[in-house]
Formats: sequence, structure tokens, C-alpha cells
Amino acid sequence: MSQQYPSALLEKAVNEFAKLPGIGRKTAMRLVLHLLRQDNNAVESFANALLTLKNEVKYCKVCHNISDSEICHICNNPQRDASTICVVENIQDVMAVENTQQFKGLYHVLGGVISPMDGIGPSDLQINSLVERVAKGDIKEVILALGSTMEGDTTNFYIFRKLAPYNVKLSIIARGISVGDELEYADEVTLGRSIANRILFTGNN
Amino acid sequence: MSQQYPSALLEKAVNEFAKLPGIGRKTAMRLVLHLLRQDNNAVESFANALLTLKNEVKYCKVCHNISDSEICHICNNPQRDASTICVVENIQDVMAVENTQQFKGLYHVLGGVISPMDGIGPSDLQINSLVERVAKGDIKEVILALGSTMEGDTTNFYIFRKLAPYNVKLSIIARGISVGDELEYADEVTLGRSIANRILFTGNN
Repeated sequence: MSQQYPSALLEKAVNEFAKLPGIGRKTAMRLVLHLLRQDNNAVESFANALLTLKNEVKYCKVCHNISDSEICHICNNPQRDASTICVVENIQDVMAVENTQQFKGLYHVLGGVISPMDGIGPSDLQINSLVERVAKGDIKEVILALGSTMEGDTTNFYIFRKLAPYNVKLSIIARGISVGDELEYADEVTLGRSIANRILFTGNN
Repeated sequence: MSQQYPSALLEKAVNEFAKLPGIGRKTAMRLVLHLLRQDNNAVESFANALLTLKNEVKYCKVCHNISDSEICHICNNPQRDASTICVVENIQDVMAVENTQQFKGLYHVLGGVISPMDGIGPSDLQINSLVERVAKGDIKEVILALGSTMEGDTTNFYIFRKLAPYNVKLSIIARGISVGDELEYADEVTLGRSIANRILFTGNN
């Protein structure tokens, strides 16, 4: 017993917090003691928010994003361009792209990327349902917006092969120097790609 | 709306997590999505651990440490030296001192230190109950183990004056160079104190 908790209830709560990613035992202790200092309502509201989310959350039947209804508010929005699908890894990525306000189409959340090391194969991801969406024929363009990693590249290539039989434009988000970055600090692969994939300079891009 | 959540339930859970100290919205999102990936039992166990702790937790009537019973297991332990009290700021400090395995007496948890800037005065802390414990006459030594801060020093001095009428030895934990530290990196106040408060070298201390 290197760590003696004065209360078994406290220890249990700390253990639960310490299971969360990136939360060590000291942080867990600090968080639990913070909650203990709040009034009963605050702790109940915290616990209930989690239980309600877990019990009532739905995933959009079309794009698999988290949703409060069967079809999410993006897929349900007639203002959005239903002929363009942006393929992303997870829910956070949908929010990240939405925050750019540069994309008016729909999404497709894979729920991960192909990663043999982690035992994640194509069948663990929402790739078949992407193919089904494309097979219906109303999709003009699929934009691959996965991370620029080995796993992202593998997944991109897998989707590329799966969608090859269909008459759909397949594009990939640009990789290059981050806006605000100095050239000298960019890695050579990124710099090389940004030169190879250079675009016409029009004075306002 | 700079951040568009795809689900109101998700947003509520993220908001609750983001209220915790040191947890920003991105971390909150990551933690909530982690919990969402767990099975129902795991989320219920997490929420229930918090609710049970909040509803059933007790504070020791003697030392004010967190406890599952009216009197904590340290105060209740006949093996401990009931004539020595170590005064600490909070529950974590009890655990820190316990982990050293150097102290066999009892504790007194103040619940904070005097901090006029934060509106914390002596009456907000468990100082009167410390005086009452000493007034009973069985206490031989009170060890002040507060942080070496302005607030800690103020609290030490306040307790010093409150306990002056009683026949009790009052000691303070040593301030000095941390074990493993180089002299050249120590601040001059610490170094000065560690020279002024030097102790006799016996070859094995």
C-alpha cells in the first residue's frame, strides 16, 4: 500500500477518475476533492449528465456522427450540399471542420482508421456504409480528410479502391506548411509535398 | 457559436467536465468521448462512485480528515501516538505525510490556511477545534506542517499565539535544501534558513 486513502469511498471515486485517459492519481484526487467541495446539486448534475448522455445518445444513421435524433442536424439540413461527403475519423474532426466554416456538404464518420497494430481492420470502421451511400448515385465528390499518418494513408487507399467502381470524384485535403509556420522548421516530407502539390497563385489565395 | 456540438446531451456532459479545475473544453470532450466508448456498467460505476462518495462521505470528528466513519482509522488506531498532533492544510497532506512512514502520531486537518486575499480567516478553518484538543491536556507536541508560503507562515503564527496559554511543545517541520538538490540551484532564502537551522551531523543523519 504505497498510497493509503483515508476513505474507501474516496479511493473508489479516485480510481474511477484515474481510469480516464491522461488523468493520473494525483489529478484524479484533486478533481474528486473539488467535486466534494461543491454542493449536492452540482455533483448530481455532473453524474446525471454522464448517465443521460450514455443512456440516450444516438448515432446518426447516415453519417454516424453523434446525434440527439435518428438523423443528425447536419444530414437533416436542406441547406447543406448533399452531393459532397467529407470523410473524417471521429466526432471531434466533424467539429473541427465545421469550425472552419469552409465546408457546406455532409460528413461520414469512420469511427477510426485502419490500424493493424491496434487490431482495427476495415470491418471495424463505417466503410461499407460509405460505399452504400456512394452506390446510391447522388454523391458527386468524396473528400478524404483523415490525419496525415501511416494509418490515415492506409485508410485513404483502402477507400480509394472501394470507391473505384463508382463514378465519384475522390479528393484529399491538402498537406503542406501550416499557416503561420516558418519554412525552415517544416519537416522535409511536408515541405516536399507542399512543393509537389503547389497550386496556381492568383493573388488572393 | 464558435463550437457547434452535434448533440445537446454531449454538450451538457462536456460542460460539466469543463467545470473541473484544469480541464479545458478539448480535454473535457476527449474524456466524455472516452466514457461514451465504455460499456454502460463502466459509466454507471463512474457516476455512482461520485454520488455515493458525495452522499455518504464523513469527516472525522476529531481530526477532520475524510473518513468512512465518525472517527477516522488513524484517530481510532491504538497503535498511534495520541500525544502528538501534526497540523496540515488538507487531506492530500495527510496522505503525503503518511506515505513518508515517518510519523506515528495523529493529524489535524485545518481545511485551508489563513488567506485574507481569498477571504479565508481563522474562523473558516478548524483552528478552534485544534485548541480544544490541546486544552484537554493529553497532547505533548503539536507539529506545524503547513506549506512554506506567506499564508502558511501567517497560519503558523496564529496557531502559535492561540496555543501559547497551554503547556504544549510546538514544533515546525524543517525548511531546507531538498534531498537530491544542488546547492547552487537553491534560492537564497531557503539556503539561508538551512544554514541558520543546521543540525549536528552524527554520521548517519
